[in-house]
Amino acid sequence: MASLNSHYLKLKAGYLFPEIGRRVSAFLAADPAAGARLIRCGIGDVTEPLPEAVRAAMHAAVDELGTREGFHGYGPEQGYEFLRAAIAEGDFRSRGIDVADDEIFVSDGSKCDCANILDVLGPDNRIAVMDPVYPVYVDTNVMAGHTGGAEADGSYAGLVYLPCTPENDFMAGPPDTPVDVVYLCSPNNPTGAAASRRKLEEWVAYALEHGALILFDAAYEAYISDPALPRSIYEIPGARKCAIEFRSFSKNGGFTGVRCAFTVVPKELELRDASGGMRPLHPLWNRRFSTKFNGVSYVTQRGAAALYSPEGRAQVADLIAGYMGNAAILREAVAGAGLAVYGGVNAPYIWVKGPAGAGSWDLFDRILNQAKVVVTPGSGFGAAGDGYFRISAFNSRERAAEAASRLAGLDWS
Amino acid sequence: MASLNSHYLKLKAGYLFPEIGRRVSAFLAADPAAGARLIRCGIGDVTEPLPEAVRAAMHAAVDELGTREGFHGYGPEQGYEFLRAAIAEGDFRSRGIDVADDEIFVSDGSKCDCANILDVLGPDNRIAVMDPVYPVYVDTNVMAGHTGGAEADGSYAGLVYLPCTPENDFMAGPPDTPVDVVYLCSPNNPTGAAASRRKLEEWVAYALEHGALILFDAAYEAYISDPALPRSIYEIPGARKCAIEFRSFSKNGGFTGVRCAFTVVPKELELRDASGGMRPLHPLWNRRFSTKFNGVSYVTQRGAAALYSPEGRAQVADLIAGYMGNAAILREAVAGAGLAVYGGVNAPYIWVKGPAGAGSWDLFDRILNQAKVVVTPGSGFGAAGDGYFRISAFNSRERAAEAASRLAGLDWS
Repeated sequence: MASLNSHYLKLKAGYLFPEIGRRVSAFLAADPAAGARLIRCGIGDVTEPLPEAVRAAMHAAVDELGTREGFHGYGPEQGYEFLRAAIAEGDFRSRGIDVADDEIFVSDGSKCDCANILDVLGPDNRIAVMDPVYPVYVDTNVMAGHTGGAEADGSYAGLVYLPCTPENDFMAGPPDTPVDVVYLCSPNNPTGAAASRRKLEEWVAYALEHGALILFDAAYEAYISDPALPRSIYEIPGARKCAIEFRSFSKNGGFTGVRCAFTVVPKELELRDASGGMRPLHPLWNRRFSTKFNGVSYVTQRGAAALYSPEGRAQVADLIAGYMGNAAILREAVAGAGLAVYGGVNAPYIWVKGPAGAGSWDLFDRILNQAKVVVTPGSGFGAAGDGYFRISAFNSRERAAEAASRLAGLDWS
Repeated sequence: MASLNSHYLKLKAGYLFPEIGRRVSAFLAADPAAGARLIRCGIGDVTEPLPEAVRAAMHAAVDELGTREGFHGYGPEQGYEFLRAAIAEGDFRSRGIDVADDEIFVSDGSKCDCANILDVLGPDNRIAVMDPVYPVYVDTNVMAGHTGGAEADGSYAGLVYLPCTPENDFMAGPPDTPVDVVYLCSPNNPTGAAASRRKLEEWVAYALEHGALILFDAAYEAYISDPALPRSIYEIPGARKCAIEFRSFSKNGGFTGVRCAFTVVPKELELRDASGGMRPLHPLWNRRFSTKFNGVSYVTQRGAAALYSPEGRAQVADLIAGYMGNAAILREAVAGAGLAVYGGVNAPYIWVKGPAGAGSWDLFDRILNQAKVVVTPGSGFGAAGDGYFRISAFNSRERAAEAASRLAGLDWS
């Protein structure tokens, strides 16, 4: 008799965003007129139009597919060379970082990559995540059977949670307990913190010493404005031996609905096999791509490559400037109301500590009811996020300014 | 110290298509002038332009993304309702088959779906595949740790191989040994055989009796011309309790480079959990989609939906008629040369038995050298494929006719 993967049954039913949706629906059912005034600063989805350079490239690619000579069927599973080269040169080599074209694996999303990477890892790794944490890192480990059941506080037995607090600038350093795999997300979702060079050096030193693997999620790299902050883990010497980097076009090019991302797997990176020998991971990830994936749409890849053209770069810069302008306005509004505010400088997320004693869902409800603004409760990202809420800067300027004004005028006492 | 998934190390290095590529390269290196004459009838990739209705829909969608009002960011991970409804109605309910919109999961490819389905299955299933077999079914089970190492004949210990021969119309029936999961591909890649209603009834009866799961890969459904043949496993009563169906737009709409497919998971389908209880699989697959995937490009989904419009249907019918016209010409040529020929009537693949005693790679080399035509050696799909080769009908009419003429004139003795 066929069996299912019972590890899935350990997953908590109430995922964060469905619960937010439920509360917003209940609020609107009770006060339908409020719908027109509602401003969503919850989910981290871009709002502004897809850049013109991308659209032009996609139109041209669609036309190409309409001719026999220009038709493209199956492409290389790992991505077309035109895009792999544009990425490796544009994001890495032009900035003095050693990454080869064939170390770039083009995919349909960073969420997929962060999830799928577990396919090529062993079953016996001790996994560390930050708390608060992007839920995908946790849930995919639960599904893969790397954890026990859920605890009362929502954490899972078997994972190592590293609390992120104002004291460590919301980016934990290496733990005392040895861990084998660590997820580092910088700039961070949800806290908006960006890891300093020193913090990343600590992690790379730790990984090299312990043979640990760093899974570096840099989906929000484009939002770094401070030139002292690393934009890639490979800016840290030694990282090519111990780190995989995830990047996305979702938040720079506005590709959340178009779907394109990439992973960097350096050829020097070796992990332990079942008999204790060291082997490169690159051939395994390459084999996974060849066997379980068929590449990203040709049309999408042409669109992504256009982000590296001069026009594409300028249009991305405008998008980022717009969202970060929103962040500044929102940040100032909440800080002006006397709350402790973090992030929002090198990331599109603002992480706010509510008044003492207020839980995240209380804050969520209060902001929804009084300001008609949807934020994300910090406790949804982990126990250490309780008492916080996240504001997303992804919005039109008009709506962000209106949300800021309402948040500034809210009675926080 | 971090470990890798050592099951990957069991995979045979030489995958079929790389080896074909190597031999073609060596041939061209020895005789560069032959390059211009070479006709590829090997890999199963479409060749004709993307239908006009699809391109029009994709252009419109790209333009929509260029406006704030029409912008689409993250969509539902499972697919937009406009596409799920078009599929459920167009491919199933309009043909009297009971499938709900939310039983359709839109993905970026059938290869991905066939591979990813193992995520939601248990580790202890006894897995059956046909021989010859689409290599992805086998390799993904090796990666997931469901097999032992490779045997000398290329098979893997722990899998149940069901030989497909002229005697069983190249579609094995249920085995004597009990199995928990079986992959059925109809119309078949590589043999071009399409399962009869009676054969599918046998499998459904077996699955219901033994609590087995049928993974029904119908990627080539559009090529069925015989009205007596089932186009969906759900035409067989009881299949909603025991079968998952995979479909693709690759081979009907020419989407091999655009990437869109779907899986049907009926809500009645229940499998055994670790404590022996029965549970529906639908919520697990839904959770997998939400957690490990972020949906297919909005532009692509609009293009796929256009395949269900009257224009789209007519354009697909023309594509299929073109490829199946090729198949008829190729089939006749090889049959006329006195070889036993199978498939090519309800599938775009022709499966040819070479002269007695000739191995598949001998046949491959002979056809390459003498006819300058690239086919696929049958042994690349499994031990039972030895002595056979596959001809793909995906080509322009001109090239297919030229290949047919050369194959007819080849000295097969």
